[in-house]
Amino acid sequence: MLTKPFEALHLGDHTTTRARTITETDIVLFASLSGDWYPLHTDSDYAAHSIFGQRVAHGLLILAITSGLLIMEPRLVVAFYGMDRVRFTGPTFIGDTIHVETEVVVREDRAERGGLVTFQIETKKSTGDTVLAALLKILVAKADPTSS
Amino acid sequence: MLTKPFEALHLGDHTTTRARTITETDIVLFASLSGDWYPLHTDSDYAAHSIFGQRVAHGLLILAITSGLLIMEPRLVVAFYGMDRVRFTGPTFIGDTIHVETEVVVREDRAERGGLVTFQIETKKSTGDTVLAALLKILVAKADPTSS
Amino acid sequence: MLTKPFEALHLGDHTTTRARTITETDIVLFASLSGDWYPLHTDSDYAAHSIFGQRVAHGLLILAITSGLLIMEPRLVVAFYGMDRVRFTGPTFIGDTIHVETEVVVREDRAERGGLVTFQIETKKSTGDTVLAALLKILVAKADPTSS
Amino acid sequence: MLTKPFEALHLGDHTTTRARTITETDIVLFASLSGDWYPLHTDSDYAAHSIFGQRVAHGLLILAITSGLLIMEPRLVVAFYGMDRVRFTGPTFIGDTIHVETEVVVREDRAERGGLVTFQIETKKSTGDTVLAALLKILVAKADPTSS
Amino acid sequence: MLTKPFEALHLGDHTTTRARTITETDIVLFASLSGDWYPLHTDSDYAAHSIFGQRVAHGLLILAITSGLLIMEPRLVVAFYGMDRVRFTGPTFIGDTIHVETEVVVREDRAERGGLVTFQIETKKSTGDTVLAALLKILVAKADPTSS
Amino acid sequence: MLTKPFEALHLGDHTTTRARTITETDIVLFASLSGDWYPLHTDSDYAAHSIFGQRVAHGLLILAITSGLLIMEPRLVVAFYGMDRVRFTGPTFIGDTIHVETEVVVREDRAERGGLVTFQIETKKSTGDTVLAALLKILVAKADPTSS
Repeated sequence: MLTKPFEALHLGDHTTTRARTITETDIVLFASLSGDWYPLHTDSDYAAHSIFGQRVAHGLLILAITSGLLIMEPRLVVAFYGMDRVRFTGPTFIGDTIHVETEVVVREDRAERGGLVTFQIETKKSTGDTVLAALLKILVAKADPTSS
Repeated sequence: MLTKPFEALHLGDHTTTRARTITETDIVLFASLSGDWYPLHTDSDYAAHSIFGQRVAHGLLILAITSGLLIMEPRLVVAFYGMDRVRFTGPTFIGDTIHVETEVVVREDRAERGGLVTFQIETKKSTGDTVLAALLKILVAKADPTSS
Repeated sequence: MLTKPFEALHLGDHTTTRARTITETDIVLFASLSGDWYPLHTDSDYAAHSIFGQRVAHGLLILAITSGLLIMEPRLVVAFYGMDRVRFTGPTFIGDTIHVETEVVVREDRAERGGLVTFQIETKKSTGDTVLAALLKILVAKADPTSS
Repeated sequence: MLTKPFEALHLGDHTTTRARTITETDIVLFASLSGDWYPLHTDSDYAAHSIFGQRVAHGLLILAITSGLLIMEPRLVVAFYGMDRVRFTGPTFIGDTIHVETEVVVREDRAERGGLVTFQIETKKSTGDTVLAALLKILVAKADPTSS
Repeated sequence: MLTKPFEALHLGDHTTTRARTITETDIVLFASLSGDWYPLHTDSDYAAHSIFGQRVAHGLLILAITSGLLIMEPRLVVAFYGMDRVRFTGPTFIGDTIHVETEVVVREDRAERGGLVTFQIETKKSTGDTVLAALLKILVAKADPTSS
Repeated sequence: MLTKPFEALHLGDHTTTRARTITETDIVLFASLSGDWYPLHTDSDYAAHSIFGQRVAHGLLILAITSGLLIMEPRLVVAFYGMDRVRFTGPTFIGDTIHVETEVVVREDRAERGGLVTFQIETKKSTGDTVLAALLKILVAKADPTSS
């Protein structure tokens, strides 16, 4: 997603990542690490009686895996500011395989500090359904810090 | 944070969670699970030469742990819509102890579907520094679905 | 289980916890962490030829998860003395969902040190079968340390 | 601990296991897997103000690791009945190295089913302090099932 | 595999270990710890279209588990030199149960330093298929360091 | 390491990977997953009295992490044949930061099946010390399968 300096990133640039299958192991590990044992994720009886009919991955697990699927060259990331409009747009089930699509949607020059770039990311199943959408705001280094 | 139905939640209601110490283990486990081995988190030589002078926890690890510190009664959560204005406002280092403070900032009645509640959350170190701020949007059940 | 001080706990008080589904992941993680690779838990060929016909969760894994399902307010627990009559009364298989039921069975006043409370705990599958029974002995704080 | 059939086990037989160092990682992994985030184990600020002055390993973590340090030949274990008088006799801190000492304290012949053997186990630090004591009751196979 | 000093090891000595079932959890944990998310191991769609038709365990995961199945008495291992001719001779799938067979194939006396022993190891499924073969070179202690 | 097809790989081509700090967590997780609790890795008292004076990472942990540091494009890897002359040339301690250097040392054309490439890999600490050396044999795809 981020393999070029600010000057070489253009509005509309898009990338697609490799894919990863979401497993029961991922859900148990995320519940364990976060401490979030909400029953829709970790109680198969409860989940069977929900509108989903089965256990659903934590939204924040999908967000965490999304971050790992993205490729960011360290020397280009000046700072990770945050995220806006993070939306969990559909359930991810055990066995679903997801990848991430990214697009540059805002470019703001910040002079010698670099450029603030907003990426629209969409995490999708191999069926094409989007399960997560968000805007990521990253301060990106310039190739030439004196350019503008 | 969410132990009462929509009717009993009022603007300005706030809660404070228990605390948890962030360890090197948490960082290694999150890098492992997410696949995000960004060197500021996992390369102590690199981190020593950064402006932070040491390794920093992933922002999304702090967000994951924040979600686990919050207490939400399953029967009250109709849906987790998403998050807005997620900001990583300061570094969390190995050994820092964090807790979460929450406040009801928006209440929107959605008739028989429940009420959409926006919580402002702030994750703070025991020093008082805020390391994460975000707005969480949750559709909350009503005690009486026919009320409005 | 333990959300009230000694004076407010009465013989026969009982509580029921949330539930959690036991997964293959839990068994592998417990074998890994403990170092107990007994084949009934970790060798599916061996287990298939046992009287259970399949892999069985470690008894101590069920005990560990039982401890996490219980809710104990830190300020009320003066000390965890130990356990008596810990019995593994039936096998827990991959996919079983368990919860814990507790009852106050002994109350012993220890003056200003608090009160020693014995809880009978039973861990049950959603089928109603008990898989673990034990007596837990906990020194509980008093609301008024000078009471008796 | 259990490498001989019932007939070859005698009252007073004792064994000593290998040792293992308890790490912060073990505590975080056990809190994660069990769901027991009691602050004495996982909040270093809270623990610093406790009578121990630092974080303490979960008693059940020590019990789990104890079980993995014991060596039991699968063909000799007919059934693990349970435990009596499980006592957490002292705190285990990060960096402590523990091993287990076992002794046969009761032998009960159960005819063709084998023999019920009670082992007294003591888990000790390298300083000699005992941190866990318990009685383990195991139904042990006979070399000759028709003996008595 | 290594429970006797150099003098007591003879060419052709062989041992067989206990077995362990390879689970999806093992694959996810190894991908996590190593950082190797090659899609044949972690993307079930990709694997379904490979010549194997399903996900395959990492070769190095099988090697890691092989090392844990071997029994080596610490006082006998002077040093682990390395491995030769490590070959991944067939795929290991989720649910396969593996064990290891070892044979002493070379003995080289190194005077007072001990003896350099080469073990041929073969990791096999319960079907008999070999999935890993390697030569392990270990410097083994002597019972009598002055013997030759 | 492997981002170009066989025709574009030349003898002497070399690459250097990103770095990763080896933590106590990595050692505990690898001992757990593999089942290898050899005391030089997991018993700090034992290790303190060894020639190293402290705990040492498992050689196979370093090999596993080495594999994850290497970058291999899936479409280019036809098969991972195995390894030769794997040597653990020095100890890796907790806190050491390692990276991998690779060099193409043998190229063998295998006609339409691709090309068998042998990479010499060396895993080094930031001090420059080599802790692992090995030859990796990989069957690499051709850009034009009919070339030779």
